[in-house]
Formats: sequence, structure tokens, C-alpha cells
Amino acid sequence: MSTPSPHPPSQPAMGEFDLIDRFFTSRFAHLAKEVPLGIGDDCALLSGDGAHDLAVSSDTMVEGTHFFADVDPFKLGHKCLAVNLSDLAACGARPKAFTLALTLPSLDEAWLEAFSSGLLALAQQHGCALIGGDTTRGPLNIGITIFGEVPKGQALKRAGAQVGDDLYVSGTLGDARWALLGLQGRVKMDPETLKATRQRLEMPEPRVALGMALRGVAHAAMDLSDGLVGDLRHLLKASQKGARIDVQRMLKSELLSNALRARAPQDALEMVLKGGDDYELLFSAPQAQRAHIELLAKRLALPLTAIGEVTENEGLELRGAQDIGGTGDPSRDLDLNLNQWVSYDHFL
Amino acid sequence: MSTPSPHPPSQPAMGEFDLIDRFFTSRFAHLAKEVPLGIGDDCALLSGDGAHDLAVSSDTMVEGTHFFADVDPFKLGHKCLAVNLSDLAACGARPKAFTLALTLPSLDEAWLEAFSSGLLALAQQHGCALIGGDTTRGPLNIGITIFGEVPKGQALKRAGAQVGDDLYVSGTLGDARWALLGLQGRVKMDPETLKATRQRLEMPEPRVALGMALRGVAHAAMDLSDGLVGDLRHLLKASQKGARIDVQRMLKSELLSNALRARAPQDALEMVLKGGDDYELLFSAPQAQRAHIELLAKRLALPLTAIGEVTENEGLELRGAQDIGGTGDPSRDLDLNLNQWVSYDHFL
Repeated sequence: MSTPSPHPPSQPAMGEFDLIDRFFTSRFAHLAKEVPLGIGDDCALLSGDGAHDLAVSSDTMVEGTHFFADVDPFKLGHKCLAVNLSDLAACGARPKAFTLALTLPSLDEAWLEAFSSGLLALAQQHGCALIGGDTTRGPLNIGITIFGEVPKGQALKRAGAQVGDDLYVSGTLGDARWALLGLQGRVKMDPETLKATRQRLEMPEPRVALGMALRGVAHAAMDLSDGLVGDLRHLLKASQKGARIDVQRMLKSELLSNALRARAPQDALEMVLKGGDDYELLFSAPQAQRAHIELLAKRLALPLTAIGEVTENEGLELRGAQDIGGTGDPSRDLDLNLNQWVSYDHFL
Repeated sequence: MSTPSPHPPSQPAMGEFDLIDRFFTSRFAHLAKEVPLGIGDDCALLSGDGAHDLAVSSDTMVEGTHFFADVDPFKLGHKCLAVNLSDLAACGARPKAFTLALTLPSLDEAWLEAFSSGLLALAQQHGCALIGGDTTRGPLNIGITIFGEVPKGQALKRAGAQVGDDLYVSGTLGDARWALLGLQGRVKMDPETLKATRQRLEMPEPRVALGMALRGVAHAAMDLSDGLVGDLRHLLKASQKGARIDVQRMLKSELLSNALRARAPQDALEMVLKGGDDYELLFSAPQAQRAHIELLAKRLALPLTAIGEVTENEGLELRGAQDIGGTGDPSRDLDLNLNQWVSYDHFL
């Protein structure tokens, strides 16, 4: 998925998604039908003739758009692979390999040493091999295409949420965006809070083990990169369902880190709902799986918080938002123009 | 493969390949051994559990490095996919799908319309589906990762050339570089010649059908993107063999287009040997396949020119170069610093 902009140079107007759809999606769609492809969401699925499908995802990170020019290259190496691994996690795929397309303005040995170390450490952790790539001169641009394996027909998709399903989110939300506001000097925070939340911004941990464990358990899943409300809408749209989110419950849950729990509820809620760059998983699962999911959370030592339920009505209700000054209608309570830049990563 | 620079902003020194090798190849190599991957050359091979391997290649094109800022976007769309299809051709793979990572400085509808049309026309021709991608704001950068299918164990590789094999090249060589010299005003040529050679520079035709037909016929193959001598050296190195090229025979063969045939032999030879951006296939095949290859050339309406033979001795001899003022020793006759920018596309 595209990552939200920590440092967007300028924000193009909405409607660009339609442009991309017009030029690429719709025009290439007939071609996709002619070849034996299963198409996923966070990943595309390439069907082979074996027992597994290959989940494929591409993500590009650009200086000035996705990261600051002076970012620690070790952390950048980590994050570039992490956001791709997160897409595999969203599909329940086991990481297998990746290619790296590196456009560099110059050859800086110290930078390459640190960048490759960050990349390698995470690749090693997930047994994901670098199998090729391309290095070119130009403005810094890092493109990764990642491949994962998933048993045929078992890939998690955005479509599939059913009425009455519980909606879950892994880990904590909003910390990455909170750190960004701190780094930008837009919010004052103590050094310890900045350090803790900055870790979430710069070194996200893709939920690969969770994704694989959710095969056959979750009805629908995706990773959270653009903020909960915006991403949830994608899942609901793909599933043709609605959802009711319990805001008060969410604010008291493990979904809030200590850093955000210490803030005013309005701030915390805004970060949780709109944050972005979270790289947690959002999934829906039938109520019959509650005990299983509780055990899974313990086994993975990862909070899996029920935030609400899937409804028939295609709207999204934020129940309890009134209590902190909202109306419960996200289109009124929130500025939902979150997708600052076009992403059609998963358009098929 | 990386494409040679039609407009290289500056040329880094050699030795950079070693840097990349040091930071990525060698450090990631042990990881590749842990996963079930067959590794090719122009493509990496992902082995599934079915009857086919998946050939994968990534290529990035950057404004100012690979193309002029004012390039016709229709042609650019064509070429970006063509260079990737050429990598599949080199492996004998059938094109299946691709992802597109597009970094754009702005959203220019006319540009997108033309770019996507060029891309789509070629994709359609080869039944290759766009299955995903990522669009980001930043300096123009076009990254494609392409997937092709090849029956297990039948992928063509650079390694495998055997002593006594004939060496063949498809189509004509040197036209793309000749056009570039014309466009840069470094060589004067009539408009008709410029038009004909420019077509080869801007709209290369990947030799996909040839690559597939060479499965089980060629002992080794690769595509020509960096110039015949430089690329041939890669093939010979991978095969641990040498070669003897018959320069005089080559200059009289179909390998020369009319445009180059009209020039002094030195000019023609330089373009043929060092040209780059050719996207023809270079392959070695046993003499027993001569009749078959002749028929293949007729069937595909594509010249397949024997340019020499594979030798035991690991050197590369240019026989007959003396007659046009050379020594026959390519390291003396030619400036071989052709790989102006690092490519480790196929390093495993």
C-alpha cells in the first residue's frame, strides 16, 4: 500500500484516484481477465499450477514524500521492507522474496551500509530473500516488489466481511502520526514520548505472523497505512457492508499506547482514527472466533482489540463520538481527505 | 536489465558494481539459499510447487538518466514495458503480468493518457496484465516488475554456453545508439536515417517469441541492453568460456541495418559492438541446431546472425578487427567502460 506522507511537499486535489482509474485500471482490466490471475487487495495474487498462490505487492518510497531527506538510512531500509511485508501480512501470505529498485543520487558508502543493514536485518527475520533488482542514478527512490506464498484460495482479502462480524485491530494506533507531529514541532511532547512513538513511525513491525494465523479465521483483512477510518471504508466498500465503531470502548482499550492515553480524548481519537503509517492489521471475524482470537493475541503477545461490528447498512457509525464533541457521523466529524496522494496499489 | 543511458547526467567511476555487491549481493546471498529459489540471470526464478517457474525481473527508468525530459510519453510507456519484456524473452519466459510503480512530479492528464496508451498497447500485444502498483509524488521514476512463466528447469540462462557452440544475435545492432548520437547532434544524418534508427531507440521490440522458441535449443542466452561486447562478456563469464567473433563476417551480415551499412566500417563496428539499448537476444547454440535456427529465423521473420563461436579459452577475440585498424584485442580496441551506471539486476 502507499504510505501516508510524513512530509507531503504539496497536496494534490482529490479526484486523482479517478484519473488513475481512468488511465490504468479500467483500460487494463480486460487484460487481467485474459490471464489466470486471482486478484487480491493489499496484494495481487498470481495463480500458478501448484498448491500455492503467489501474493505480490509493490511499494515505492520517495524522499520528500514518504521520508525526510535526513532520515536514518538504517531505519529507512527497515521501513521500506516493512511496509511491503505488511501488505503480505494483510493477505496472510508467508514472505518469500523481494526485488529492490534503487534510484540513488550518488553512491554514498556509509548510507548504503546502513540502508542495506536495516533492510537485511528485517529480511533475515522474515526469511525473505533479495532475488534481484535494479540500481539507477537519479533522485532517491526506493521501490520494492515483494512475493509471498499463500495456500491456494486462502488469501485474506478486503472483501468478505459479514454482518455481525467483530472488527479487530492489532497493536496500537496513532503513535506514528503523533511522533510526526512532534518531529514537525506541531505538538509538544516530552523526549521519552517522542522516542517511544518515533519508534512506531520509523521502525514499524509488520504483522506477518498474525496475518498467517488469520487464514481461515478472519473473513476480511487489510493493513492500516492511511488511517483507520479511511482504510476501514475500503474494507467495507469491498465487502459491501457498514460498521459501527464503539468510540468510548476504543479509547479505553489497548489500542491506545501510553503516549496517547495521556492526551485529551479528542487528540487520542483523532490520532487513532486518522493517524496513518500504523501498519497494524484490521480484520473482521465471526463472533464464534472470539476465544480463538483471544488465545492468538496471547500467543503473539500482541493486543487484538475489538473495536466494533460489521453492519448491514453501508454507512460507518462512530458510536459515542458525541461524548467528546462529535456527531457520530465521520463525514462531519473528521476531515476524511486522508488519501493525500493517489494510491491504486490494489485496484483490481 | 538496466538500460544504457541515452542522456547520462554524469558518469560515476567503475568499481561501483563492487560496492553494490558488497552491500547487497554478498550479504543477502545466504538468505537466498534458505528459500526454494532457482536463480536466473536476466530474470530471477521463483520456484513454485507446480509445473512452471515464475521468472521475475525489475527495471526502473529515470528521467535524465534513461530518457529525455521531453520524450514522447506514448513511446516511453512502450519502452518501459519493452525493456522488461526483453528480460523475460532472455529467459524464454511467457509474459504473464506486471506491476507498475509510478512516481510523478504532477498529474498531467495528457501525459498519463499517452503513457498508459503506449504501455497498454504493448501489454495487450503480449497478453501481459497490469496487476497492481503504486503511484507516488516525486521526480519522474517508472519502475516495472514483470512476471513470466517458464516450464520448470527450462529457463534460458547466461551460463551454459559450450565450446564449439555458434553465437547468434537477433535483429540488427547499433541503431539505437546511432540514433542517440544523431539526436544529440554528435553525428550528422539525413532525416530518413534518423527516423528509422530512432524507432529502434524509442520503440524496441522485445524478442519474446524468439526467447520462448529457444527453450531447449539455445545453451545460453541473454538480452542485449548494454552493448554486444560488454554483454557477451557477462554471458562468457557466467559460462566460463571464451569466444571468437568474426568481425568481417559480422559487418557483411544482416546484423547491420541499412543505416549502419552506409557508414564507414569503423563507425558501424563501434555501434554494433558498443551500441547498447538494442534489446536483441544473444544466444549460443550447438552446431546441430543450425538448420533449426535458420527455419526459426524464417518463421519469425527475424534475422538470426551467427557472429562467431564459443571457445575454451576464456578471452574474447575479435577476428578481423585488424583489417579496419584494430588489434583484435577488445580491451585495446574498445573503451569497454560501458556500464556507466551500476546494474546488479541479475546478480544472483
